[in-house]
Amino acid sequence: MPQEGVLSQIKSFIVGSPIPSHLAHHERLSRVTGLAVLSSDPLSSVAYATEEILRVLVVAGAVALSLASPIGIVIAGILAIVVFSYRQTIHAYPGGGGAYIVSKENIGTTAALVAAAALLIDYVLTVAVSIAAGVAAITSALPGWHVNRVELSVGFVVVLALGNLRGVRESGRIFALPTYFFIVSVLSLVVLGAWRVMTGLSQPIDAPIDPVGVSTGGALTAFLLLTAFSNGCTAMTGVEAVSNGVPAFQPPESKNASATLVAMAVISIAMFLGITLLSQAYGVMPSRSETVVSQLARGVFGGRGFAYYAVQASTMLILVLAANTAYADFPRLSSIIARDHYLPRQFMNQGDRLAFSNGIIALSVFAVLLLILFGGDTHALIPLYMVGVFVSFTLSQAGMVVHWRRLQVRGWRGSAAINGIGAAVTGIVLLVVAVTKAHEGAWIILVLIPLLVSLFRVTHRHYRSVATQLSLAGGGEPEALRHNTVVVPVSGMQRAVVRALDYARTLSPDVRAVCVDVDRAETEQLRGEWDRWGRGVPLVVLSSPYRSVLEPLLEHVEQIDAARPDGYVTVVLPEFVPARWWHHLFHNQRALLIKGALWFKPNIVVTSVPFHLAR
Amino acid sequence: MPQEGVLSQIKSFIVGSPIPSHLAHHERLSRVTGLAVLSSDPLSSVAYATEEILRVLVVAGAVALSLASPIGIVIAGILAIVVFSYRQTIHAYPGGGGAYIVSKENIGTTAALVAAAALLIDYVLTVAVSIAAGVAAITSALPGWHVNRVELSVGFVVVLALGNLRGVRESGRIFALPTYFFIVSVLSLVVLGAWRVMTGLSQPIDAPIDPVGVSTGGALTAFLLLTAFSNGCTAMTGVEAVSNGVPAFQPPESKNASATLVAMAVISIAMFLGITLLSQAYGVMPSRSETVVSQLARGVFGGRGFAYYAVQASTMLILVLAANTAYADFPRLSSIIARDHYLPRQFMNQGDRLAFSNGIIALSVFAVLLLILFGGDTHALIPLYMVGVFVSFTLSQAGMVVHWRRLQVRGWRGSAAINGIGAAVTGIVLLVVAVTKAHEGAWIILVLIPLLVSLFRVTHRHYRSVATQLSLAGGGEPEALRHNTVVVPVSGMQRAVVRALDYARTLSPDVRAVCVDVDRAETEQLRGEWDRWGRGVPLVVLSSPYRSVLEPLLEHVEQIDAARPDGYVTVVLPEFVPARWWHHLFHNQRALLIKGALWFKPNIVVTSVPFHLAR
Repeated sequence: MPQEGVLSQIKSFIVGSPIPSHLAHHERLSRVTGLAVLSSDPLSSVAYATEEILRVLVVAGAVALSLASPIGIVIAGILAIVVFSYRQTIHAYPGGGGAYIVSKENIGTTAALVAAAALLIDYVLTVAVSIAAGVAAITSALPGWHVNRVELSVGFVVVLALGNLRGVRESGRIFALPTYFFIVSVLSLVVLGAWRVMTGLSQPIDAPIDPVGVSTGGALTAFLLLTAFSNGCTAMTGVEAVSNGVPAFQPPESKNASATLVAMAVISIAMFLGITLLSQAYGVMPSRSETVVSQLARGVFGGRGFAYYAVQASTMLILVLAANTAYADFPRLSSIIARDHYLPRQFMNQGDRLAFSNGIIALSVFAVLLLILFGGDTHALIPLYMVGVFVSFTLSQAGMVVHWRRLQVRGWRGSAAINGIGAAVTGIVLLVVAVTKAHEGAWIILVLIPLLVSLFRVTHRHYRSVATQLSLAGGGEPEALRHNTVVVPVSGMQRAVVRALDYARTLSPDVRAVCVDVDRAETEQLRGEWDRWGRGVPLVVLSSPYRSVLEPLLEHVEQIDAARPDGYVTVVLPEFVPARWWHHLFHNQRALLIKGALWFKPNIVVTSVPFHLAR
Repeated sequence: MPQEGVLSQIKSFIVGSPIPSHLAHHERLSRVTGLAVLSSDPLSSVAYATEEILRVLVVAGAVALSLASPIGIVIAGILAIVVFSYRQTIHAYPGGGGAYIVSKENIGTTAALVAAAALLIDYVLTVAVSIAAGVAAITSALPGWHVNRVELSVGFVVVLALGNLRGVRESGRIFALPTYFFIVSVLSLVVLGAWRVMTGLSQPIDAPIDPVGVSTGGALTAFLLLTAFSNGCTAMTGVEAVSNGVPAFQPPESKNASATLVAMAVISIAMFLGITLLSQAYGVMPSRSETVVSQLARGVFGGRGFAYYAVQASTMLILVLAANTAYADFPRLSSIIARDHYLPRQFMNQGDRLAFSNGIIALSVFAVLLLILFGGDTHALIPLYMVGVFVSFTLSQAGMVVHWRRLQVRGWRGSAAINGIGAAVTGIVLLVVAVTKAHEGAWIILVLIPLLVSLFRVTHRHYRSVATQLSLAGGGEPEALRHNTVVVPVSGMQRAVVRALDYARTLSPDVRAVCVDVDRAETEQLRGEWDRWGRGVPLVVLSSPYRSVLEPLLEHVEQIDAARPDGYVTVVLPEFVPARWWHHLFHNQRALLIKGALWFKPNIVVTSVPFHLAR
């Protein structure tokens, strides 16, 4: 099979050799590696959360920037509530409790599908936002690359997609290094920066090249404040990752996961509040081409030195890791949804590298689309991000309330209260986000979620209908046709035709060759040669007023089919197999047309007998 | 067949209903319609030829522009020689004597293939250049549209392509109007302009918006003069059209064609020289956004009045017509080349509207490509145009010399001398064009011609090889295998499977069902149901260490094939036919994979038994 060999070799080269089933185990995570693997998403959002708050406040003038700190503190408080709420999910669902599963078990199908839609959208946005922000970290350090941010972003997505098609998911441990590198470098920045401010050693930051214009005309309305707050809530994204990943931990799984979640929250809040407070202390002005973190690092470390580049590099790395977590989550969730028949079954197929290839490809395509449409701009993507996150938060927490009410285990009222508060708070945030962000792009998500839910339902209905139609349980015994009329279309006497006739004769005693008369001379020649090579099969000649070979042939086949309701009609086509794939360009695809035309007729089967050209 | 219906209805709507063969006659052309139909290409080139001369000369300063007139006169002289030369081809080849046919019959295959390559490239450039120049006529009149010239150009190509797929070629008579409209309006311009100059009534023209910078530093070198001359030779393009179209004339065909050719030459020279001389008299300066003809019309008619717009409109119309002639020539030539087995046979297929659809599509794709690559700029495309034109001129005339020497009819020496002069002159022009234009883009054509010739040869070799392999003349009697082992892959008990088993049983007494064991429970269930539904066919269960369904199955089929060299193996696949095309998205394309994998095995045939889902 040299022709297959090339393709499968290319595939092997790109995605690696197949992995057998019995190697399908995951390495279990300790708390230290668990924090690294599952926290990159929530931790990395500190890279852009503060900036998103500042960019809204600046509309009301430079003085309004001082409101970032109280907003940051409120967000930190809500994050703490959400984390407490999720700790309970971890203990209640040691097998992994994503919003889809929790909603399905406790609320109902519609809620589960809404959660599923929100989560899938979210994962796509995690990739898009994280990569855009990672590229912003690069272009802040290397301003010359700013014009190529879309190309850089798309490049990163392609690398992630290829890596995940190979199955890098299995090698989680290499993630530890960048995550801790990020934590150490950002906390160093925060501590050193705070120390300098407190000792009065801090210097003003050189203004960025391309500051967002400070409009003095904007009023500081409640709507503006809420918008700034909505933007800051990006700091909360990705909290769900730990509760999804409980079974990946070393035993005792729930306990380790819970401890990891709390550690993640503490670090996350420390970094987010640190950056927000310092931004004010250093008088950072949001800019179109330099991130807030980059400006802060310049200010604290006194210019673009080694420490500055370390912060930028670690920010870029953790954002790419954050995007990578979506590459584990999206395909896994879509395979679960497909298993429930709400997505096409192709999403269930694990490839031969144990990765859900179709999920990986779908995720990459949508993320690339978003990055191109929104010009690789984090700020433009953020409004789309929050709705999905808070829909799934709210449904998940509300589901937990029902869970406790249903089970009524000891102390259930307390647990229900905690989740209830979580649901209420995230629900309110959801409302705020939807109202303040709708006109900036969130409306897309508000339209997309019901659309996806309808798609899920259509899919489900189709599979149920097919199952019914295929079932042998109801309905009568399928009728068995006994006869088979074999038709061999022929245009001239060739080896491939003789071979097709031979094959046809093994199928049935009732074989007939059919020739469409488009060229009088050729037809006569065929008639002349038929005695010698026709293998005793009768030859039928059909006339063709429109020069079409296809239509008279199809009509003839349909006539035979109509005349023998007790039998099949098999059309046997001689078909070339060229020695090289590009030789296909030299041959008409008539066989394909015949197959296509007869594909919808019951009791008609079209078969190609390959004739292999040697060169 | 509702599913087929939609597609063919869409096709009917776009390209029209099929036309039966017996309507495949052309209306014969009188001299008057013949001039209109076949001369649009040569006549239309006066719209840009003068401008192309001026744009080169302006490099050597405004004074150098006065050299346009002598250059124009030389070109007019050469055009006269070429026309006389072609008159002889018309009489020698009353069946139509294109450069490909004349070269093939008189010089040899390589010359013919070079001519063919040159002509095909030429037709593509005729479309690109004519459309670009036609759009320039529009944007000169409506400067606001200048920025959209690429979009406009592509739009025109698409309209021409769709029109020709419908077969507008048949309705040649509607072409008469725009051609004579153009002749009348340009000759009016020339006559009125000349009268005003001679009576001293001419006024200076307002300078165009965007003049090509007059560099005073450029030297008036011989190379520059030759470059200007090369550019002006665009006036000669399309002369071949009449000699190609001889059989389309009313009898006596050759005489009518010859008279038409001379009329075309006289009108063409009058218009070209008129515009060139007047441009000087009115002091026209070439501009990036307004054509020379537009400036001249402004000057002669005293601004943008009715007469001005008439000239611009007729120029645009005839240029679109000129592009349309390539839509008759390219598909016809490529079908002739394909008939000789030098191009894939798809180019021979006349569609059901009697148009060579594939040629039309290929021509359009290449023209659009050129227009986009060169920004829809006539001036940028011109350097590519001349090489192909003069290669075919030279080969065609040289071929005629050989023709006369070979036949030695009465007076052959005189005829040979005329064609010899024609060949020598066009050969020299070819050399001049190649040298002066190579660095401006003509190198692309100098590379493309040999490349196309190699493609022609590769194609020819392939078809010859296939014919040998398929021939029953040599080699022994094809062996007839008698046995047929039928294999039905099965994954679960369903109606579609039962149907496939029934069908398989009509093919051969040797049928076996094969199940790949990827899920122990499912396999056991299948075993349990087999007695009830298995139709007495034996069930083989294969194990699968890599979860792959495909590989164990393929191996098993290959084993059967190896064990029975005296027989075929037929794999019968149950395959769903969904009720709606988009339902395909819900189902794995496993059948396609199996077919692909077994496609290269001799003696193995794969058949799908359609199972039609009702909803």
